[in-house]
Amino acid sequence: MEIKEKKMLTARKAEDFSEWYQQAIINSEFVDYSAVSGMIAFRPAAYFAWDAVRSATSKLFIESGIQDVYFPMLIPEHLLEKEQEHVEGFSPEVAWVTHTGKSKIDERLAIRPTSETIMYYSYSKWIRSWRDLPMRFNQWNSVIRWEFKHPVPLLRSREFMWNEGHTAFATKEDAEAERDVVLGIYEKVLKDYLALPGIKGRKTDKEKFAGALASFSIEHMLPNGLAIQGPDFHVDGQNFAKVFDIKFLDKDGSVKYAYQNTFAISTRELGVMIAVHGDDKGIVLPPKLALVQVVIIPIFKEQNRAKIIAAAHELSKALSGIRVFIDETDAYSPGWKFNEWELKGVPVRIEIGEKEVSGDSITVARRDTLEKMSIKKQEAREKLLALLEDIHVNLYKRALERLSKSIHKVSTMKEFKELIESRSGFAQAPWCGKVECEDKIKEETGAKATNMPFDVQGEAEGKKCVYCGSDAIAIVNFAKSY
Amino acid sequence: MEIKEKKMLTARKAEDFSEWYQQAIINSEFVDYSAVSGMIAFRPAAYFAWDAVRSATSKLFIESGIQDVYFPMLIPEHLLEKEQEHVEGFSPEVAWVTHTGKSKIDERLAIRPTSETIMYYSYSKWIRSWRDLPMRFNQWNSVIRWEFKHPVPLLRSREFMWNEGHTAFATKEDAEAERDVVLGIYEKVLKDYLALPGIKGRKTDKEKFAGALASFSIEHMLPNGLAIQGPDFHVDGQNFAKVFDIKFLDKDGSVKYAYQNTFAISTRELGVMIAVHGDDKGIVLPPKLALVQVVIIPIFKEQNRAKIIAAAHELSKALSGIRVFIDETDAYSPGWKFNEWELKGVPVRIEIGEKEVSGDSITVARRDTLEKMSIKKQEAREKLLALLEDIHVNLYKRALERLSKSIHKVSTMKEFKELIESRSGFAQAPWCGKVECEDKIKEETGAKATNMPFDVQGEAEGKKCVYCGSDAIAIVNFAKSY
Repeated sequence: MEIKEKKMLTARKAEDFSEWYQQAIINSEFVDYSAVSGMIAFRPAAYFAWDAVRSATSKLFIESGIQDVYFPMLIPEHLLEKEQEHVEGFSPEVAWVTHTGKSKIDERLAIRPTSETIMYYSYSKWIRSWRDLPMRFNQWNSVIRWEFKHPVPLLRSREFMWNEGHTAFATKEDAEAERDVVLGIYEKVLKDYLALPGIKGRKTDKEKFAGALASFSIEHMLPNGLAIQGPDFHVDGQNFAKVFDIKFLDKDGSVKYAYQNTFAISTRELGVMIAVHGDDKGIVLPPKLALVQVVIIPIFKEQNRAKIIAAAHELSKALSGIRVFIDETDAYSPGWKFNEWELKGVPVRIEIGEKEVSGDSITVARRDTLEKMSIKKQEAREKLLALLEDIHVNLYKRALERLSKSIHKVSTMKEFKELIESRSGFAQAPWCGKVECEDKIKEETGAKATNMPFDVQGEAEGKKCVYCGSDAIAIVNFAKSY
Repeated sequence: MEIKEKKMLTARKAEDFSEWYQQAIINSEFVDYSAVSGMIAFRPAAYFAWDAVRSATSKLFIESGIQDVYFPMLIPEHLLEKEQEHVEGFSPEVAWVTHTGKSKIDERLAIRPTSETIMYYSYSKWIRSWRDLPMRFNQWNSVIRWEFKHPVPLLRSREFMWNEGHTAFATKEDAEAERDVVLGIYEKVLKDYLALPGIKGRKTDKEKFAGALASFSIEHMLPNGLAIQGPDFHVDGQNFAKVFDIKFLDKDGSVKYAYQNTFAISTRELGVMIAVHGDDKGIVLPPKLALVQVVIIPIFKEQNRAKIIAAAHELSKALSGIRVFIDETDAYSPGWKFNEWELKGVPVRIEIGEKEVSGDSITVARRDTLEKMSIKKQEAREKLLALLEDIHVNLYKRALERLSKSIHKVSTMKEFKELIESRSGFAQAPWCGKVECEDKIKEETGAKATNMPFDVQGEAEGKKCVYCGSDAIAIVNFAKSY
């Protein structure tokens, strides 16, 4: 039973990313391992960050006409099995409820790995005429996918929180027009809140969602050279509508099946955010997602304690609209506290000692660059608001530079293999569209198709498939994935 | 495949509450039965209402220093079993996960019926010194309690959403001081958002929460004369702390166990809200919880359609800060639409026809009293905001009057039995504090102790127990319960 031990990081991000990540995320008290293997506890800083993402995304969804709903977390086995590809994709990871109280139940219930099947059962009752469309519903919940690989907090958790949007339209065109709206919302939230860039594109058929006609994603690159998928959007066409009998009487008097989409952003993004922005001192939180944006560390001795603490509170009061915490305990030294708050990733630290109380300036340190500067007390609020904004912009800029540098155009398999072996990011290569080539590439290099970035598809024309040499139809970002 | 059938209510609330409630809640498209027995789908209106309750409560929690966290939804069996009373209270209702994918798991996992056990496992790691206290955490999630009685949407669901607050303090006094803060927050949210009054008091030991030292509740009365428990607050003392080893190094150098509380408000309140405010035309939503606050019904023929629809949109634009929907379909008559929106409980309806377009007034109908009135177009926004506020106040006042009238002071068992048999509400009676009397009362009348209302405890002095005639120590509200 002692006061807190000093839990700094011993691993270096550049040398052992995996160990660094686990130390950073746990020692910073962002999340913790729980009593259940592969599932984590979201501590206040992590939940705050997720809630900010949820709330920002939700606001944009609602503005675009999407409504929130909530469906049961359990799905009867016969429903989950209705769509063949879907059940094959998910059933290996499903957690099954077989008993309630002391009784065995007649039919097993799956804890939702995703909610298409239980939602579409209701959609088929609710959708009768073209007047009921579009039906654009979303829910915020948590799902369980029992990963059997080594689970990693946030990046590969057996339970994660997310949004799942499930929409239905009268026409193919209306359904397809939703894609850019939703991917645009995700891109905006990633940039404006998580300070994360990503690569938008279409998945190959091999890598698309179980049950979808086409999948789209925003892909990230981790510091260890492994790609990880971010938010996604799936065009389901009439696939589920036919299986779940979601049809409507159209204006022309005929009965048609609805066209559907699904889309999601999950708590995995918090893991990507930490992986991308963190450094050897700890995690680095983008200011909008930081529960504490500014920490004030009073530097005092016994004789000037009261005066300095009072000055800290006075300053705090002047910082309306900023989330401030004053660390006034005397159990730890200022140096210890500096380390502690750097570990926790708080964007700005203010030091207030005798010099700051008697003078007209305070000392400020920014977490992203670790720079120290002096600002006038009178301008504190205004300068700090600008500094928080600047930190956000800098984090995004830095991340975008790194992402851009991680994309390497290759045109031969030799270059491809060397690139993948060096773990330096994406091998961007022309591809003929044949799954055989995709399979062979995976077999020989370990890299899979992450997506076909929208912004480079024009370059496919005239190029040859990196594997077989026949005409390319797409440019693909290949990488080993997390 | 047809356009919507007319689904009005056939049951009368005063004659067959149970049938009325189910028709009202389903036909209004507030919630729907789902593919899982005993679990419901929250349609947009219901989710919006719950999200407003969540958001209002959360804001008050955060202001009072409570922080949001999130813990896994699954609890290993050995953890759930650690506290004896707790497991006995919950295990009959637990949904058990026994398999993941094709594999049987080594230890069964309970879907949380409540999260004390999984949270306190972590608290024992996180709490080391008095500096870590108080630790006041809350989570918003859904839980499963497999009710074997007939489930009823919202009022008795096998899955429900709630907040669960779980706090730890260094001293008994600090822990106990939290009670009035939290019950005050719940009371405020019930009054200001759901327009619901309740009776605040302490539960008897027989009726307290499994594992608590003392429980407190806010109790409601349903129109059928049955009581139903609302939000609650439990003082756990050091009970769980001893079982889960939650201890800390105090200022005096000694190691002590923490004092804990737990508290909750759930989606059951939405059911109570509908039961209390609804009428034979449908549900009645308090304006702050209404996804649509004002519905505009344009009344047109083919020749003036465009003009009238345009006027409706113009009016809508002037109503900033109000959630407005224009029902401009021509598939249904105005009368059909009036019924439909009354069924859905939208607080205010505006009718716009030729007369309203040419004149300077519009016709407005309020849902709570069904009164119609005329308001000047120019003052529409201001008058409607005032009307929405007035509807809220009126709903609360009406509910409070009914609740007050449902409390009947009785001093003999003859009065007690007559009152309970007549299904007219609470029998408020003096009680000696002995569980034997409480048991006998339950046996002979079917009524149980709902709680001991704070505001009448002064009246116990000098009174005799309604059952045994010995000195009373408390005044108890007895009722049959839902």
